[in-house]
Amino acid sequence: MAASIIDSRIFQGIFTTDAMREVWSDENRTRHYVAIERALAVVQGRLGLIPPEAADEIVRHCRLELIDLDKLRAQTERIGYPILGVVSQLNALCRDGLGEYVHWGATTQDITDTATVLQIREGLELVDAELAAIADAMARLAKTHRLTPMIGRSNLQQAIPVTFGYKMAGLLSAVLRHRERIAQLRERVLVGEFAGAAGTLASLQTGAMQTQAGLCAELGLAQPVIAWHTIRDNIAEVGAVLGLIGGTLGKLSMDVKLMMQTEVGEVYEPYHHGRGSSSTMPQKRNPISSCYIHAAISVVRQHAAALMDAMVADHERSTGPWEIEWIVLPEAFCLMAGALKQARAVLEGLEVDTAAMKRNLEMTGGLVMSEAVMMGLGPYIGREYAHDLVYDLCRESLASKRPLIDLLAAHPEIARHVDRAALERMLDPANYLGQSGVMVDRVLATM
Amino acid sequence: MAASIIDSRIFQGIFTTDAMREVWSDENRTRHYVAIERALAVVQGRLGLIPPEAADEIVRHCRLELIDLDKLRAQTERIGYPILGVVSQLNALCRDGLGEYVHWGATTQDITDTATVLQIREGLELVDAELAAIADAMARLAKTHRLTPMIGRSNLQQAIPVTFGYKMAGLLSAVLRHRERIAQLRERVLVGEFAGAAGTLASLQTGAMQTQAGLCAELGLAQPVIAWHTIRDNIAEVGAVLGLIGGTLGKLSMDVKLMMQTEVGEVYEPYHHGRGSSSTMPQKRNPISSCYIHAAISVVRQHAAALMDAMVADHERSTGPWEIEWIVLPEAFCLMAGALKQARAVLEGLEVDTAAMKRNLEMTGGLVMSEAVMMGLGPYIGREYAHDLVYDLCRESLASKRPLIDLLAAHPEIARHVDRAALERMLDPANYLGQSGVMVDRVLATM
Amino acid sequence: MAASIIDSRIFQGIFTTDAMREVWSDENRTRHYVAIERALAVVQGRLGLIPPEAADEIVRHCRLELIDLDKLRAQTERIGYPILGVVSQLNALCRDGLGEYVHWGATTQDITDTATVLQIREGLELVDAELAAIADAMARLAKTHRLTPMIGRSNLQQAIPVTFGYKMAGLLSAVLRHRERIAQLRERVLVGEFAGAAGTLASLQTGAMQTQAGLCAELGLAQPVIAWHTIRDNIAEVGAVLGLIGGTLGKLSMDVKLMMQTEVGEVYEPYHHGRGSSSTMPQKRNPISSCYIHAAISVVRQHAAALMDAMVADHERSTGPWEIEWIVLPEAFCLMAGALKQARAVLEGLEVDTAAMKRNLEMTGGLVMSEAVMMGLGPYIGREYAHDLVYDLCRESLASKRPLIDLLAAHPEIARHVDRAALERMLDPANYLGQSGVMVDRVLATM
Amino acid sequence: MAASIIDSRIFQGIFTTDAMREVWSDENRTRHYVAIERALAVVQGRLGLIPPEAADEIVRHCRLELIDLDKLRAQTERIGYPILGVVSQLNALCRDGLGEYVHWGATTQDITDTATVLQIREGLELVDAELAAIADAMARLAKTHRLTPMIGRSNLQQAIPVTFGYKMAGLLSAVLRHRERIAQLRERVLVGEFAGAAGTLASLQTGAMQTQAGLCAELGLAQPVIAWHTIRDNIAEVGAVLGLIGGTLGKLSMDVKLMMQTEVGEVYEPYHHGRGSSSTMPQKRNPISSCYIHAAISVVRQHAAALMDAMVADHERSTGPWEIEWIVLPEAFCLMAGALKQARAVLEGLEVDTAAMKRNLEMTGGLVMSEAVMMGLGPYIGREYAHDLVYDLCRESLASKRPLIDLLAAHPEIARHVDRAALERMLDPANYLGQSGVMVDRVLATM
Repeated sequence: MAASIIDSRIFQGIFTTDAMREVWSDENRTRHYVAIERALAVVQGRLGLIPPEAADEIVRHCRLELIDLDKLRAQTERIGYPILGVVSQLNALCRDGLGEYVHWGATTQDITDTATVLQIREGLELVDAELAAIADAMARLAKTHRLTPMIGRSNLQQAIPVTFGYKMAGLLSAVLRHRERIAQLRERVLVGEFAGAAGTLASLQTGAMQTQAGLCAELGLAQPVIAWHTIRDNIAEVGAVLGLIGGTLGKLSMDVKLMMQTEVGEVYEPYHHGRGSSSTMPQKRNPISSCYIHAAISVVRQHAAALMDAMVADHERSTGPWEIEWIVLPEAFCLMAGALKQARAVLEGLEVDTAAMKRNLEMTGGLVMSEAVMMGLGPYIGREYAHDLVYDLCRESLASKRPLIDLLAAHPEIARHVDRAALERMLDPANYLGQSGVMVDRVLATM
Repeated sequence: MAASIIDSRIFQGIFTTDAMREVWSDENRTRHYVAIERALAVVQGRLGLIPPEAADEIVRHCRLELIDLDKLRAQTERIGYPILGVVSQLNALCRDGLGEYVHWGATTQDITDTATVLQIREGLELVDAELAAIADAMARLAKTHRLTPMIGRSNLQQAIPVTFGYKMAGLLSAVLRHRERIAQLRERVLVGEFAGAAGTLASLQTGAMQTQAGLCAELGLAQPVIAWHTIRDNIAEVGAVLGLIGGTLGKLSMDVKLMMQTEVGEVYEPYHHGRGSSSTMPQKRNPISSCYIHAAISVVRQHAAALMDAMVADHERSTGPWEIEWIVLPEAFCLMAGALKQARAVLEGLEVDTAAMKRNLEMTGGLVMSEAVMMGLGPYIGREYAHDLVYDLCRESLASKRPLIDLLAAHPEIARHVDRAALERMLDPANYLGQSGVMVDRVLATM
Repeated sequence: MAASIIDSRIFQGIFTTDAMREVWSDENRTRHYVAIERALAVVQGRLGLIPPEAADEIVRHCRLELIDLDKLRAQTERIGYPILGVVSQLNALCRDGLGEYVHWGATTQDITDTATVLQIREGLELVDAELAAIADAMARLAKTHRLTPMIGRSNLQQAIPVTFGYKMAGLLSAVLRHRERIAQLRERVLVGEFAGAAGTLASLQTGAMQTQAGLCAELGLAQPVIAWHTIRDNIAEVGAVLGLIGGTLGKLSMDVKLMMQTEVGEVYEPYHHGRGSSSTMPQKRNPISSCYIHAAISVVRQHAAALMDAMVADHERSTGPWEIEWIVLPEAFCLMAGALKQARAVLEGLEVDTAAMKRNLEMTGGLVMSEAVMMGLGPYIGREYAHDLVYDLCRESLASKRPLIDLLAAHPEIARHVDRAALERMLDPANYLGQSGVMVDRVLATM
Repeated sequence: MAASIIDSRIFQGIFTTDAMREVWSDENRTRHYVAIERALAVVQGRLGLIPPEAADEIVRHCRLELIDLDKLRAQTERIGYPILGVVSQLNALCRDGLGEYVHWGATTQDITDTATVLQIREGLELVDAELAAIADAMARLAKTHRLTPMIGRSNLQQAIPVTFGYKMAGLLSAVLRHRERIAQLRERVLVGEFAGAAGTLASLQTGAMQTQAGLCAELGLAQPVIAWHTIRDNIAEVGAVLGLIGGTLGKLSMDVKLMMQTEVGEVYEPYHHGRGSSSTMPQKRNPISSCYIHAAISVVRQHAAALMDAMVADHERSTGPWEIEWIVLPEAFCLMAGALKQARAVLEGLEVDTAAMKRNLEMTGGLVMSEAVMMGLGPYIGREYAHDLVYDLCRESLASKRPLIDLLAAHPEIARHVDRAALERMLDPANYLGQSGVMVDRVLATM
């Protein structure tokens, strides 16, 4: 029985992914606990801090299958934290009291935080892989539609032409920066924790820093410069970066939703039988994936704020702020995985209706090209006069519902300089795409 | 396998309750879907809108056990929403095509929202019951400790005496208001939804409003004044009230944490073997429940903001905002249930160390009673002069570490008017509790 | 020089109102400080707690004009709070040391919080007055367009017809509930504070509760049941209600923005010369007010969460949480005032293009009426068969771009039962408005 | 008259700084507008895109003093944005219609966003300078108190000793990472915008990219890879980094508040006459700066979430999300400046009471050293037995209130191996500081 949407039997496949749920599962978390205790024994055995046979015996039993999770739940509810339960189970598995050397010099938070970092590492890998796929899909669309004209919209009003490739390239530029952010963040956050009750490692009278260095190396993590039990900027930064990625996915979903409107119809989420359609309203083509993205990222941005709250930790081990992370990190990653999956599916299967784009470009009868015409006529009749004249003809066009081209061609002062064919060239959106293609190229060049 | 803390095998008993998880479970949600379809058939059969035998046949099959949840997951992932899957399963269960009358005139959101309201009703009942128990526990503490002196603290500085009962009564006043808020909110939110594709009920050419009225009555809900598919203030208000309750629990946990400090030691969360203690630091008595409360309510307040975002819905059925509620409502209720459980346990088992309270009152050697002494001496030597004199003696006491009583008794001008015994009465916190007891009584009188 | 958008010389008229800025101005806050000290002197003089001549002298000088605000800034920066500065200025104004009786038995927070409540009272009056005006405007639109057909949209797809009046009535129902919320909230929040250093009123050895009662009565506030220095649910509830109101305004602005799209063009924000237009893009009609609303309410919902954080207060006078309110309350009210003003202007001047609504209803060539046709044909050819037949013809219409009416009229099985005129009636949105008008009436009846 | 706390005559010196208010003032924003228009004219004159004499004439008038801000307010309220107002004023200032070349090819958002980036540059410089000063103060404290013992606290319980220098070094490590984040962020965010109505720069038929490159160079900004009118990850990242910095300041203020408690008294905010003291409670020493920090950063973290919401922009120029930034960016920077100022003042003037630290270390009568004793006795009597024995003696000490040293020295089994002097060495916190000093050194080495 599941109560959260992430673990819901019905909804989990929509709002998250199996791979990300696996990362944050009880099993994987406990697997990391055990693996860290194992690595600690290996390192301390090697350093001679614990007897070699104790290290061997511990290593032999550090396997998730040997942990009784039901018992662990009971232990956790009693103690408040799961680590001592794991340690006592491992201890009991070892012969001859050698299990006393499990968790040697460590504190609960050392194991918990290091496990969290390992989960973050896995989570970021999944996020980054999806971002890479999304970048590829965007790049493909940007290239294919480098010069596919569509109307650019400002304040939800038709403004001037852009290309669909330009639209994709803008999003792509953000995705590439997110990958850069993840790379920079990894340097800060993929750091182990091994510091003892108050972070000073007093629990190990010898070999303290060597154990810390060895343990981190064993786990493929960097060594911390100082204990970070209550210095949580790195964890909060993970949430912030997820929130930023969410913002970009939200912008994507917003544009897809708007372009899928019945009145617009320029792109469509990939069609699957039954999905996003209605049994009584056959004209509907619902942007289902975009809905899920919108919802997920709205929550993740609040999670980012909660993780900043978790930074307000007291003294050497905090009293509540830490547990905020326990709630928020799994959800933020899981929701983000769902949003990324949906975004990727949208992009990889996006149907682009270039004819509809053309139709929408033309629906104002040329008004959206007025800026181009003003510029085109400027050299002949002066820029300022061209502006005023075209502006007046546009208003006349709006009022009379006559196409702008007819009004332009019929105007004696204009006709004196340019013929209808020239005016039609000025009114052709394909001739007013500006640097759309150049900007696409610039973005693609940074991949 | 669970990834969220709410559904975690290990942590669910800490961060939420079985009863609240049951409310928001897939099973209960689907049970409500089925119950609503059943009620709809009953009402429409009664009104003659569907054939009586169809109503009977539908009613016969509207049982959760007959729904294949795995199939429902597949249907949901394909369609995007679970309702059509339920309807088609019910339809298939009915003989002779009578299942065609399932969901007659309804839309997906009608069933989903009404089910959510039923879940909210159950959730609010659990919340309110816990608040009632918490109010009882607070009232008991307020009564018992109506005149138990302790130091009042301002800016985390010892200020002047209060009573522990006064402290509890302040919290109690908020809890009572929360119950009032829930009562007022229920009037607004316990309202059914039955409105069809765009809220107009055009799907029923006859009997539309009667069906709506009958369905709501059947479910024990109020009839909506108008469709609320995209009018979500009531749902967001649920989140806001949960956030407000969380704030009060947060204040409780903050005070408990601070009073449990080693340097303060005035109250303790109830002791259970192994809980909140350390195997190597026997002096520790950790405020475990308070940690969980602090964390949960930090997240719930962010959920309240997310539900306000969900209000920014578009047109007649929203494109993403609605799904924010799907994510947030179950979590907010589940986390709140955990926080309430922890708070109740803290209050019902709270250990109050009145001796420590007395000790802390005395630790400044009477300085915290300076205001009382200023007032007590005023009638003899003038208020202003009393203030300045006492203030000076306090500073001397601070500097010299001599008890204030000695300095006061030794001062010739004071000695002229009052003797040491009188000064000791002025310095007795029990004589400077102000309206603590009266205020306790005032709060208790409102229960 | 102003740095905030609220006080910006350039932007203040857009993002807030003069009246609301006045409420939260330094001048008005200080005016309330002075008025509260005055009321306190009046009450305490009446009760004989301070000498009558002191009361008179204090009352005489409790005028904002006598306070030196520059000096007050310096005092505030030194002390950390402004109240003692005000008290010492008042004290100095009074003759013969009578000013010593200013602030008798009060603490800084008593005056600050009571002043805040008075500001909240004024702020809520402004908010409620705007809501009333907005409700009137919505009611007018709902009545006028009670049966004005337009397309209802679900998931940003054209679904089935609604009326514009129905759309307005839905929003109106929320606005009316917000007014109810404000009325209920006032009962809780319009409460004075007078409680002394730790809330116990020990500072007054006699007449404590009488002073409290008298002061509150003098100010037109309810008497608190207990001190609320660190019990802040009521203040946070103010933020929550502002956030909820914001959500409704956000929904309004979302719909206006979407309906103003070039491709939709159904309503327009009122036109003012130069506003929302472009000098080079004459086709543009920007939803400027809706932009401001969207932005303001996005921030206010975050403010609501911050005010819930402020509830996590420590002990008897909090160490930081209180000051959150100082930052957030003025901003939340000011931004909300701006959003309300913009929303009111939009509604009072809204241009409704019923012809465009009709045009959009027809743009799918009847597909949005398929549900109506299915229902209309049901009695003749069976509901299920009617569904399948119409669905197929709809798809054919989509594929062939032929109007649905032609396909329907040409179909032999249909033609056998109904003629083209009957089909046209079925396809007429005006005949498929369901309970739109009834629901409008129901909402209007609750005003 | 000011309504926001940032611009409040009374509070501005507390909650922000003059320098940061200047950055976000109307005057500075407008100064940047004018400077950008100037730079644009310079570049376009140089490129031959506008007549040299126009460039000269524009440059001559691009001075803030020539802009009428009252007129600008009126223009802004009419149009909705201030840029056209500035342009039209500049235009009017130029002779012979040369002002027509002002703003050549630019759009409102180009100027607004570039000005915002310039403000962000200035704001980040102020933030970074404060962080540098804070880092210096922390480093000084870390060095000075590298080995000053104090009790480490876990869950607000005394745990084991740490040093005050270690505490400072932990915070310092975060501050140094924040400076790294700012450096990385600058690479992304200090980028100009010049892209025209829909981002394609179609407004310039020749010299578009050269103008963009030249303008950015002129302003000392990087050239954008593509237009970012609605690609706002960089702006949101600014908010996220401010939120993260806030988290660290919040942790600092939390620790200072807790250490300043009457019952703890280990450090004090610097004393200024009248500040944080009470006229009637001379024992008080309020953590005033820490209060302000706590409040400011609580709001800034919500601002970070609001800026992520602003990322959900529509199409080529967004309809509301953009304006979220207008509200939030100035406030977030101004509040952060106040919090940084307060934090710096706290750190630079911090009074450290090492005697109190020693006293608190000793208050449990040695219990906090139990871990050390367990370890110290291990070699003589076996680790496990040592643990159990010491644990029992600790409980006896707690129950009997006798010092642990007496119980240890009196125990025959212990006395057989070690004498009282040796036990006293084990119980000396100075001998159980673990890697505190090493970790301090490691952090300092990264500066």
